[in-house]
Amino acid sequence: MIVLVDQDNVLADFDGSFLEKWRRQFPGEFYVAFEQRKDFYAHKDYPEELKEKIVSVYAAPGFILNLPLISGASEALAQLIVLGHDVRICSSPLTNYQNCVEEKYAWVEKHFGKDFTNRIILTQDKTLVRGDVLIDDKQEITGLLNPEWEHIIFDRPWNREIRNKRRLTWQNWREVLQGA
Amino acid sequence: MIVLVDQDNVLADFDGSFLEKWRRQFPGEFYVAFEQRKDFYAHKDYPEELKEKIVSVYAAPGFILNLPLISGASEALAQLIVLGHDVRICSSPLTNYQNCVEEKYAWVEKHFGKDFTNRIILTQDKTLVRGDVLIDDKQEITGLLNPEWEHIIFDRPWNREIRNKRRLTWQNWREVLQGA
Repeated sequence: MIVLVDQDNVLADFDGSFLEKWRRQFPGEFYVAFEQRKDFYAHKDYPEELKEKIVSVYAAPGFILNLPLISGASEALAQLIVLGHDVRICSSPLTNYQNCVEEKYAWVEKHFGKDFTNRIILTQDKTLVRGDVLIDDKQEITGLLNPEWEHIIFDRPWNREIRNKRRLTWQNWREVLQGA
Repeated sequence: MIVLVDQDNVLADFDGSFLEKWRRQFPGEFYVAFEQRKDFYAHKDYPEELKEKIVSVYAAPGFILNLPLISGASEALAQLIVLGHDVRICSSPLTNYQNCVEEKYAWVEKHFGKDFTNRIILTQDKTLVRGDVLIDDKQEITGLLNPEWEHIIFDRPWNREIRNKRRLTWQNWREVLQGA
Protein backbone atom coordinates (compact mmCIF):
# COMPACT_ATOMS: atom_id res chain seq x y z
CA MET A 1 0.00 0.00 0.00
CA ILE A 2 0.99 3.59 -0.56
CA VAL A 3 0.29 5.22 2.79
CA LEU A 4 0.13 9.01 2.65
CA VAL A 5 0.51 10.59 6.07
CA ASP A 6 -0.28 14.20 6.86
CA GLN A 7 2.41 16.04 8.84
CA ASP A 8 0.78 18.64 11.14
CA ASN A 9 -1.33 17.15 13.93
CA VAL A 10 -0.65 13.60 12.71
CA LEU A 11 3.13 13.41 13.05
CA ALA A 12 3.96 16.83 14.50
CA ASP A 13 1.96 18.21 17.43
CA PHE A 14 1.10 21.55 15.82
CA ASP A 15 -1.97 22.48 17.84
CA GLY A 16 -0.71 21.10 21.15
CA SER A 17 2.43 23.15 20.76
CA PHE A 18 0.43 26.18 19.66
CA LEU A 19 -1.63 26.06 22.85
CA GLU A 20 1.42 25.72 25.07
CA LYS A 21 3.14 28.68 23.41
CA TRP A 22 -0.07 30.72 23.38
CA ARG A 23 -0.52 30.35 27.11
CA ARG A 24 3.12 31.09 27.80
CA GLN A 25 3.29 34.17 25.55
CA PHE A 26 -0.14 35.52 26.43
CA PRO A 27 -0.87 34.44 30.00
CA GLY A 28 -4.31 35.54 31.12
CA GLU A 29 -5.55 35.69 27.52
CA PHE A 30 -8.56 33.63 26.39
CA TYR A 31 -7.72 30.08 25.36
CA VAL A 32 -9.43 26.87 24.32
CA ALA A 33 -8.29 23.67 26.03
CA PHE A 34 -7.01 21.10 23.53
CA GLU A 35 -9.84 18.64 24.10
CA GLN A 36 -12.39 21.44 23.60
CA ARG A 37 -11.15 22.40 20.16
CA LYS A 38 -13.95 22.24 17.59
CA ASP A 39 -12.37 23.59 14.42
CA PHE A 40 -9.45 22.38 12.33
CA TYR A 41 -8.14 25.96 12.27
CA ALA A 42 -7.15 27.22 15.72
CA HIS A 43 -8.07 30.82 14.96
CA LYS A 44 -11.65 29.82 14.16
CA ASP A 45 -12.08 28.57 17.73
CA TYR A 46 -10.92 31.93 19.07
CA PRO A 47 -12.48 35.41 18.87
CA GLU A 48 -11.76 37.07 15.53
CA GLU A 49 -9.77 39.90 17.14
CA LEU A 50 -7.13 37.41 18.35
CA LYS A 51 -6.36 36.08 14.86
CA GLU A 52 -3.26 38.21 14.29
CA LYS A 53 -1.78 37.21 17.66
CA ILE A 54 -2.54 33.56 16.94
CA VAL A 55 -0.84 33.67 13.56
CA SER A 56 2.17 35.35 15.14
CA VAL A 57 2.64 32.28 17.33
CA TYR A 58 2.62 29.60 14.64
CA ALA A 59 4.29 31.65 11.91
CA ALA A 60 7.26 32.45 14.15
CA PRO A 61 10.68 31.15 13.06
CA GLY A 62 11.38 27.84 14.75
CA PHE A 63 7.76 27.01 15.56
CA ILE A 64 7.47 24.24 12.95
CA LEU A 65 11.00 22.95 13.48
CA ASN A 66 10.49 22.59 17.21
CA LEU A 67 7.14 20.80 17.11
CA PRO A 68 7.24 17.67 19.26
CA LEU A 69 6.49 14.30 17.68
CA ILE A 70 3.04 12.93 18.37
CA SER A 71 3.35 9.91 20.62
CA GLY A 72 3.72 6.66 18.71
CA ALA A 73 4.10 8.28 15.28
CA SER A 74 7.75 7.46 14.81
CA GLU A 75 7.39 3.80 15.76
CA ALA A 76 4.29 3.43 13.56
CA LEU A 77 6.00 4.85 10.48
CA ALA A 78 9.01 2.62 11.00
CA GLN A 79 6.72 -0.40 11.34
CA LEU A 80 4.70 0.50 8.26
CA ILE A 81 7.92 0.52 6.26
CA VAL A 82 9.04 -2.78 7.76
CA LEU A 83 5.67 -4.22 6.75
CA GLY A 84 6.45 -3.28 3.14
CA HIS A 85 4.23 -0.25 2.76
CA ASP A 86 5.39 2.83 0.90
CA VAL A 87 5.06 5.73 3.33
CA ARG A 88 4.98 9.32 2.11
CA ILE A 89 4.46 12.48 4.10
CA CYS A 90 1.79 14.52 2.36
CA SER A 91 1.54 18.03 3.70
CA SER A 92 0.00 21.38 2.76
CA PRO A 93 2.23 24.31 3.75
CA LEU A 94 0.81 27.43 5.33
CA THR A 95 -0.11 30.10 2.78
CA ASN A 96 2.59 32.20 4.38
CA TYR A 97 5.22 29.67 3.42
CA GLN A 98 8.15 31.59 4.95
CA ASN A 99 9.62 29.60 7.87
CA CYS A 100 7.16 26.85 7.04
CA VAL A 101 8.32 24.90 3.99
CA GLU A 102 11.99 24.67 4.87
CA GLU A 103 11.20 23.91 8.51
CA LYS A 104 8.86 21.11 7.44
CA TYR A 105 11.80 19.46 5.68
CA ALA A 106 14.13 20.18 8.59
CA TRP A 107 11.58 18.73 11.03
CA VAL A 108 11.38 15.49 9.05
CA GLU A 109 15.19 15.29 8.90
CA LYS A 110 15.42 15.92 12.66
CA HIS A 111 13.01 13.13 13.59
CA PHE A 112 13.33 10.61 10.74
CA GLY A 113 16.72 11.31 9.16
CA LYS A 114 17.85 13.04 5.99
CA ASP A 115 16.78 10.25 3.59
CA PHE A 116 13.22 10.50 4.84
CA THR A 117 12.96 14.02 3.39
CA ASN A 118 12.75 12.30 -0.01
CA ARG A 119 9.35 11.02 1.10
CA ILE A 120 7.86 14.50 1.49
CA ILE A 121 5.17 15.68 -0.90
CA LEU A 122 4.11 19.30 -0.41
CA THR A 123 0.88 20.29 -2.10
CA GLN A 124 -2.15 22.44 -1.43
CA ASP A 125 -4.31 19.90 -3.23
CA LYS A 126 -3.92 16.37 -1.89
CA THR A 127 -6.44 14.97 -4.40
CA LEU A 128 -3.67 15.28 -7.01
CA VAL A 129 -1.54 12.76 -5.10
CA ARG A 130 -1.82 9.05 -5.74
CA GLY A 131 -2.02 6.61 -2.87
CA ASP A 132 -4.14 3.94 -1.23
CA VAL A 133 -4.87 5.73 2.03
CA LEU A 134 -4.36 9.24 3.38
CA ILE A 135 -4.15 9.55 7.15
CA ASP A 136 -5.20 13.10 7.90
CA ASP A 137 -6.89 14.97 10.75
CA LYS A 138 -8.81 17.36 8.49
CA GLN A 139 -12.53 16.60 8.42
CA GLU A 140 -13.01 16.79 4.65
CA ILE A 141 -10.31 16.88 2.03
CA THR A 142 -11.38 18.27 -1.29
CA GLY A 143 -9.61 19.47 -4.38
CA LEU A 144 -9.62 19.35 -8.14
CA LEU A 145 -10.15 15.60 -8.46
CA ASN A 146 -12.02 12.78 -6.84
CA PRO A 147 -9.27 11.29 -4.66
CA GLU A 148 -7.77 7.89 -5.41
CA TRP A 149 -7.03 7.27 -1.73
CA GLU A 150 -9.34 6.43 1.12
CA HIS A 151 -9.29 9.19 3.72
CA ILE A 152 -8.67 7.74 7.16
CA ILE A 153 -9.30 10.24 9.93
CA PHE A 154 -6.49 10.76 12.40
CA ASP A 155 -8.33 11.18 15.67
CA ARG A 156 -8.21 14.77 17.00
CA PRO A 157 -10.79 16.67 19.08
CA TRP A 158 -11.92 18.79 16.12
CA ASN A 159 -12.91 15.83 13.93
CA ARG A 160 -14.90 13.74 16.41
CA GLU A 161 -18.19 14.44 14.61
CA ILE A 162 -16.93 12.62 11.51
CA ARG A 163 -18.57 9.19 11.61
CA ASN A 164 -18.44 7.91 8.03
CA LYS A 165 -14.66 7.35 7.89
CA ARG A 166 -12.30 4.95 9.57
CA ARG A 167 -10.60 6.59 12.55
CA LEU A 168 -7.01 5.92 13.48
CA THR A 169 -4.54 6.70 16.24
CA TRP A 170 -0.87 5.68 16.51
CA GLN A 171 -2.03 3.18 19.13
CA ASN A 172 -4.66 1.35 17.02
CA TRP A 173 -3.27 1.79 13.49
CA ARG A 174 -2.55 -1.90 12.94
CA GLU A 175 -6.16 -2.88 13.45
CA VAL A 176 -7.55 0.06 11.52
CA LEU A 177 -5.32 -0.46 8.49
CA GLN A 178 -6.22 -4.16 8.28
CA GLY A 179 -8.04 -4.65 5.03
CA ALA A 180 -7.52 -1.08 3.83
CA MET B 1 -6.22 19.10 -18.95
CA ILE B 2 -4.09 19.06 -15.85
CA VAL B 3 -0.75 20.39 -17.06
CA LEU B 4 2.13 19.67 -14.71
CA VAL B 5 5.12 21.89 -15.38
CA ASP B 6 8.59 21.31 -14.01
CA GLN B 7 10.25 24.37 -12.46
CA ASP B 8 14.03 24.22 -13.00
CA ASN B 9 15.09 24.53 -16.65
CA VAL B 10 11.49 24.75 -17.81
CA LEU B 11 10.31 27.90 -16.04
CA ALA B 12 13.49 29.01 -14.23
CA ASP B 13 16.79 29.10 -16.08
CA PHE B 14 18.76 27.00 -13.60
CA ASP B 15 21.58 25.78 -15.81
CA GLY B 16 21.94 28.99 -17.81
CA SER B 17 22.30 30.89 -14.58
CA PHE B 18 24.65 28.27 -13.17
CA LEU B 19 27.00 28.70 -16.14
CA GLU B 20 26.98 32.46 -15.89
CA LYS B 21 27.79 32.39 -12.18
CA TRP B 22 30.36 29.62 -12.63
CA ARG B 23 32.30 31.64 -15.20
CA ARG B 24 32.08 34.78 -13.08
CA GLN B 25 33.14 33.11 -9.82
CA PHE B 26 35.78 30.83 -11.35
CA PRO B 27 37.17 32.65 -14.39
CA GLY B 28 39.73 30.55 -16.22
CA GLU B 29 38.22 27.33 -14.84
CA PHE B 30 36.97 24.59 -17.18
CA TYR B 31 33.39 25.04 -18.35
CA VAL B 32 30.88 23.49 -20.75
CA ALA B 33 29.03 25.85 -23.07
CA PHE B 34 25.26 25.62 -22.59
CA GLU B 35 24.57 24.11 -26.02
CA GLN B 36 27.27 21.47 -25.40
CA ARG B 37 25.72 20.15 -22.19
CA LYS B 38 25.04 16.40 -22.44
CA ASP B 39 23.84 15.47 -18.97
CA PHE B 40 20.82 16.58 -16.97
CA TYR B 41 23.12 17.08 -13.96
CA ALA B 42 25.70 19.83 -14.54
CA HIS B 43 28.33 18.19 -12.36
CA LYS B 44 28.26 15.05 -14.54
CA ASP B 45 29.41 17.12 -17.53
CA TYR B 46 32.37 18.40 -15.50
CA PRO B 47 35.41 16.63 -14.07
CA GLU B 48 34.61 14.87 -10.80
CA GLU B 49 37.04 17.05 -8.81
CA LEU B 50 34.96 20.15 -9.58
CA LYS B 51 31.76 18.77 -8.06
CA GLU B 52 32.10 20.51 -4.72
CA LYS B 53 32.73 23.87 -6.37
CA ILE B 54 29.76 23.31 -8.69
CA VAL B 55 27.43 22.51 -5.82
CA SER B 56 28.66 25.61 -3.97
CA VAL B 57 27.36 27.73 -6.85
CA TYR B 58 23.82 26.38 -7.07
CA ALA B 59 23.34 25.69 -3.36
CA ALA B 60 24.25 29.28 -2.45
CA PRO B 61 21.57 31.40 -0.76
CA GLY B 62 19.74 33.45 -3.39
CA PHE B 63 20.70 31.26 -6.35
CA ILE B 64 17.21 29.77 -6.81
CA LEU B 65 15.39 32.99 -5.95
CA ASN B 66 17.35 34.98 -8.53
CA LEU B 67 16.97 32.57 -11.44
CA PRO B 68 15.71 34.37 -14.53
CA LEU B 69 12.48 33.27 -16.18
CA ILE B 70 12.92 31.22 -19.33
CA SER B 71 11.73 33.25 -22.28
CA GLY B 72 8.06 32.75 -23.07
CA ALA B 73 7.30 30.70 -19.93
CA SER B 74 5.23 33.32 -18.18
CA GLU B 75 3.07 34.10 -21.21
CA ALA B 76 2.57 30.39 -21.93
CA LEU B 77 1.40 29.60 -18.38
CA ALA B 78 -0.99 32.55 -18.42
CA GLN B 79 -2.39 31.39 -21.76
CA LEU B 80 -2.77 27.80 -20.60
CA ILE B 81 -4.89 29.03 -17.71
CA VAL B 82 -6.96 31.27 -19.98
CA LEU B 83 -7.57 28.23 -22.20
CA GLY B 84 -9.06 26.45 -19.16
CA HIS B 85 -6.23 24.11 -18.29
CA ASP B 86 -5.26 23.43 -14.71
CA VAL B 87 -1.59 24.33 -14.41
CA ARG B 88 0.54 23.03 -11.52
CA ILE B 89 4.24 23.47 -10.94
CA CYS B 90 5.70 20.05 -10.17
CA SER B 91 9.22 20.25 -8.86
CA SER B 92 11.78 18.05 -7.10
CA PRO B 93 13.85 19.99 -4.58
CA LEU B 94 17.59 19.48 -4.28
CA THR B 95 18.51 16.82 -1.73
CA ASN B 96 20.16 19.63 0.19
CA TYR B 97 16.86 21.39 0.59
CA GLN B 98 18.23 24.34 2.58
CA ASN B 99 17.87 27.56 0.54
CA CYS B 100 16.05 25.51 -2.08
CA VAL B 101 12.51 24.75 -0.98
CA GLU B 102 11.64 28.17 0.43
CA GLU B 103 13.32 29.92 -2.50
CA LYS B 104 11.34 27.82 -4.96
CA TYR B 105 8.15 29.20 -3.38
CA ALA B 106 9.57 32.72 -3.27
CA TRP B 107 10.61 32.46 -6.93
CA VAL B 108 7.09 31.49 -7.96
CA GLU B 109 5.64 34.36 -5.91
CA LYS B 110 8.12 36.81 -7.45
CA HIS B 111 7.25 35.89 -11.05
CA PHE B 112 3.64 34.68 -10.87
CA GLY B 113 2.23 36.21 -7.68
CA LYS B 114 1.44 34.85 -4.22
CA ASP B 115 -1.69 32.92 -5.25
CA PHE B 116 0.34 30.93 -7.75
CA THR B 117 2.33 29.37 -4.89
CA ASN B 118 -0.82 27.31 -4.21
CA ARG B 119 -0.11 25.54 -7.51
CA ILE B 120 3.27 24.20 -6.35
CA ILE B 121 3.71 20.48 -5.79
CA LEU B 122 7.11 19.50 -4.38
CA THR B 123 7.97 15.82 -4.62
CA GLN B 124 10.96 13.64 -5.32
CA ASP B 125 8.69 11.18 -7.10
CA LYS B 126 6.57 12.76 -9.84
CA THR B 127 4.91 9.45 -10.71
CA LEU B 128 2.83 9.92 -7.56
CA VAL B 129 1.26 13.08 -9.01
CA ARG B 130 -1.87 12.94 -11.13
CA GLY B 131 -2.09 14.90 -14.36
CA ASP B 132 -2.56 14.63 -18.11
CA VAL B 133 0.86 15.85 -19.17
CA LEU B 134 4.14 16.65 -17.45
CA ILE B 135 6.40 19.12 -19.22
CA ASP B 136 9.90 18.31 -17.99
CA ASP B 137 13.44 18.54 -19.33
CA LYS B 138 14.63 15.34 -17.65
CA GLN B 139 15.18 12.52 -20.15
CA GLU B 140 13.41 9.78 -18.22
CA ILE B 141 11.17 10.22 -15.22
CA THR B 142 10.73 7.15 -13.12
CA GLY B 143 9.40 6.42 -9.68
CA LEU B 144 7.22 4.08 -7.70
CA LEU B 145 4.32 3.97 -10.15
CA ASN B 146 3.65 3.92 -13.83
CA PRO B 147 2.83 7.58 -14.42
CA GLU B 148 -0.67 8.73 -15.32
CA TRP B 149 0.64 11.67 -17.33
CA GLU B 150 2.32 11.77 -20.69
CA HIS B 151 5.86 13.06 -20.38
CA ILE B 152 6.45 15.87 -22.86
CA ILE B 153 10.12 16.78 -23.16
CA PHE B 154 10.99 20.43 -22.64
CA ASP B 155 13.71 20.99 -25.20
CA ARG B 156 17.16 21.45 -23.64
CA PRO B 157 20.59 20.51 -25.00
CA TRP B 158 20.95 17.52 -22.67
CA ASN B 159 17.79 15.79 -23.86
CA ARG B 160 18.17 16.06 -27.64
CA GLU B 161 18.77 12.33 -28.04
CA ILE B 162 15.24 11.59 -26.75
CA ARG B 163 13.17 10.85 -29.87
CA ASN B 164 10.17 8.87 -28.60
CA LYS B 165 8.46 11.75 -26.81
CA ARG B 166 6.81 14.93 -27.93
CA ARG B 167 9.17 17.88 -27.60
CA LEU B 168 8.02 21.32 -26.56
CA THR B 169 9.37 24.85 -26.23
CA TRP B 170 7.57 27.97 -24.98
CA GLN B 171 7.45 29.04 -28.63
CA ASN B 172 5.71 25.94 -30.09
CA TRP B 173 3.67 24.75 -27.08
CA ARG B 174 0.28 25.46 -28.70
CA GLU B 175 0.97 23.10 -31.60
CA VAL B 176 2.61 20.45 -29.44
CA LEU B 177 -0.18 20.34 -26.88
CA GLN B 178 -2.86 20.02 -29.58
CA GLY B 179 -4.46 16.66 -29.08
CA ALA B 180 -2.54 15.83 -25.92
